[in-house]
Amino acid sequence: MKLHPDGHEKTVIDPFGTSYVADYERLYREFGIEPFQPLLPSLPNPSLYMRRGIVFGHRDFKVILEAMTRNEKFAVLSGIKPTGEFHLGTLMTAKEIIYFQKQGAQAFYCIADIEAYEDNKIPFEKSEKIAINNVADLLALGFDPDRGYIYRQSKENRVKDLAIIFGRAVTLATMKAIYGERSIGLYLAALIQAGDILLPQLEDFGGPKPTVIPVGIDQDPHIRLTRDLAQVFHNKFGFIPPSSTYHKLMKGLDGSPKMSKRLMNYFTLDDSPETITQRISNAFTGGRPTIKEQRELGGVPEICPVYEICLFHFVEDDEDIKRIYCECKTGKLLCGEHKKQTIDLVLKFVEEHKRRKNKLLDKAREIILNKP
Amino acid sequence: MKLHPDGHEKTVIDPFGTSYVADYERLYREFGIEPFQPLLPSLPNPSLYMRRGIVFGHRDFKVILEAMTRNEKFAVLSGIKPTGEFHLGTLMTAKEIIYFQKQGAQAFYCIADIEAYEDNKIPFEKSEKIAINNVADLLALGFDPDRGYIYRQSKENRVKDLAIIFGRAVTLATMKAIYGERSIGLYLAALIQAGDILLPQLEDFGGPKPTVIPVGIDQDPHIRLTRDLAQVFHNKFGFIPPSSTYHKLMKGLDGSPKMSKRLMNYFTLDDSPETITQRISNAFTGGRPTIKEQRELGGVPEICPVYEICLFHFVEDDEDIKRIYCECKTGKLLCGEHKKQTIDLVLKFVEEHKRRKNKLLDKAREIILNKP
Repeated sequence: MKLHPDGHEKTVIDPFGTSYVADYERLYREFGIEPFQPLLPSLPNPSLYMRRGIVFGHRDFKVILEAMTRNEKFAVLSGIKPTGEFHLGTLMTAKEIIYFQKQGAQAFYCIADIEAYEDNKIPFEKSEKIAINNVADLLALGFDPDRGYIYRQSKENRVKDLAIIFGRAVTLATMKAIYGERSIGLYLAALIQAGDILLPQLEDFGGPKPTVIPVGIDQDPHIRLTRDLAQVFHNKFGFIPPSSTYHKLMKGLDGSPKMSKRLMNYFTLDDSPETITQRISNAFTGGRPTIKEQRELGGVPEICPVYEICLFHFVEDDEDIKRIYCECKTGKLLCGEHKKQTIDLVLKFVEEHKRRKNKLLDKAREIILNKP
Repeated sequence: MKLHPDGHEKTVIDPFGTSYVADYERLYREFGIEPFQPLLPSLPNPSLYMRRGIVFGHRDFKVILEAMTRNEKFAVLSGIKPTGEFHLGTLMTAKEIIYFQKQGAQAFYCIADIEAYEDNKIPFEKSEKIAINNVADLLALGFDPDRGYIYRQSKENRVKDLAIIFGRAVTLATMKAIYGERSIGLYLAALIQAGDILLPQLEDFGGPKPTVIPVGIDQDPHIRLTRDLAQVFHNKFGFIPPSSTYHKLMKGLDGSPKMSKRLMNYFTLDDSPETITQRISNAFTGGRPTIKEQRELGGVPEICPVYEICLFHFVEDDEDIKRIYCECKTGKLLCGEHKKQTIDLVLKFVEEHKRRKNKLLDKAREIILNKP
């Protein structure tokens, strides 16, 4: 299957073919990332992201699949860089962890405050406040803190100690190849992230086990670095190289390839209904220049960020999203109407989410401030 | 005063003019290291190393001098890389710390086990054992643990956290300029060392205060890096840039510029009397080819490692060492006789030291294993 960013050509009819990744074939061929799709039939209960091809690739996911089907222990870890409020990108990672937790994984959620400090210059006093808010979001989404571990890098000495141990095995050349010419702190943050990824396999957490890291494809260099380190230190710790899944990255609402604070082309779960309404109303779409053309040719959901947010987040039923896709493609559903429907769905979700979240802020504060 | 490695020329008659440092003038002129000698008259109770010019340079020692004379609080920190037994080099640093502790300093002794790991590949389980032995030496030499703080880097989270905070401000270029192309772990160890040096100034230890770091001149790059970091983070922590004193480095017993495990040109405080006797007996000296020549021309104590170990460690009285110097210079004291005297002094010291040390091994174990 060849995906193409320009749906006009209609070479592919695929309701899940949004968020074009530049060159899947190359990722598969040159970087050793395997396509996820062939695993789908074996998965007892694939997530929305898996079913819709948003999770498109993996490394070593088969060991996770085996653990899941044999009811053996496994772990999931991912996290958030505490730089701001939950948006639709961080929401995706949170949902992926919660999905695996519900499938029986020991779940780890890392607040990457050292990375926020080294990379984004956010002082720890500030990221602490941000983290409390982020964790309340995570809990509101259904993360069970009693069966999972939420921690800040800056307070988790086991992670820092792993980074120190790993440091000996990483050359400057490797770091420069992955991250370019940066501060030592940024390289240290990368080693700490390797520590995060292998934390679930320490004896304190039950020892070596398959661990899956659900991330955006842009995070693969961290995964490769950590898989290398897992091998180098296998004799000492018994590490199993971590598995990963890769999801597509969401576009900005203005149609640009990335969400960006500067462009204000996204919204957060803390934004007001007015802001959210305005951002979606002003969004770029896959619509045609005129209504007449759109009725005749149909829209282009493949390039449409409004369709994308429905596909990723706000239309849960696969039949519903397929229907929207078809109605758009056939010119039945116009952009104005679809934006209106989408705004309703988003506001309904955000309102309910905020209600749940407000009750969990104290719990989030307790997790962030009281745990060692 | 111009020192010259070859005493033959007799341009300088100076009983303390051993251990030639290649170019003092350049250190003073280009690197901002100040000569120590002008401060001597102001020091109420200078140490043996200060009196004998073994401590030859400093940065900002005046703030220490002021604190000492005004009875204000100040700190001293130095340490050991736990890679082996105490030798005459590590002995020197230990004595310097103990000197400052006796002058009223809050004393910190750092076991640089992270550096031993990153630089010398010594696993933490091994450096722990070495550290216990090293600390027993330190205590036997007179360090008062009740008025000082002995710690391992790997267990001191405040030091690791400072390293993480400092990382943001240190570029790769700086690290490469100081340490060359090394592993990330080695660079991390350097940041951790900066954390060590500024640890005494944290609120947990009473807040900012003048701190002196007695080191060999080869350690100056660490001092400069840390002084820069103290300035960068002054607003956050109130750091006063650390002061330093620089001592000359001891030669090998074979006359080569450095003590080296490979060359076996030194002895440790744990060596047997037989080994020590043998090493000193076989040492290079500043003697002449024949007894006749030596009676006529005198010896050359300036290049003699046997004279040097007396000067640095085993002849405490300044008048005694001056007498030895003169007797050698005038051909009165020959090498065989002086070696014999020196062996007696060393064996007596080592025997008494071992006796004291054996009683302190349990205390050392307690300090290394039980403290958080």
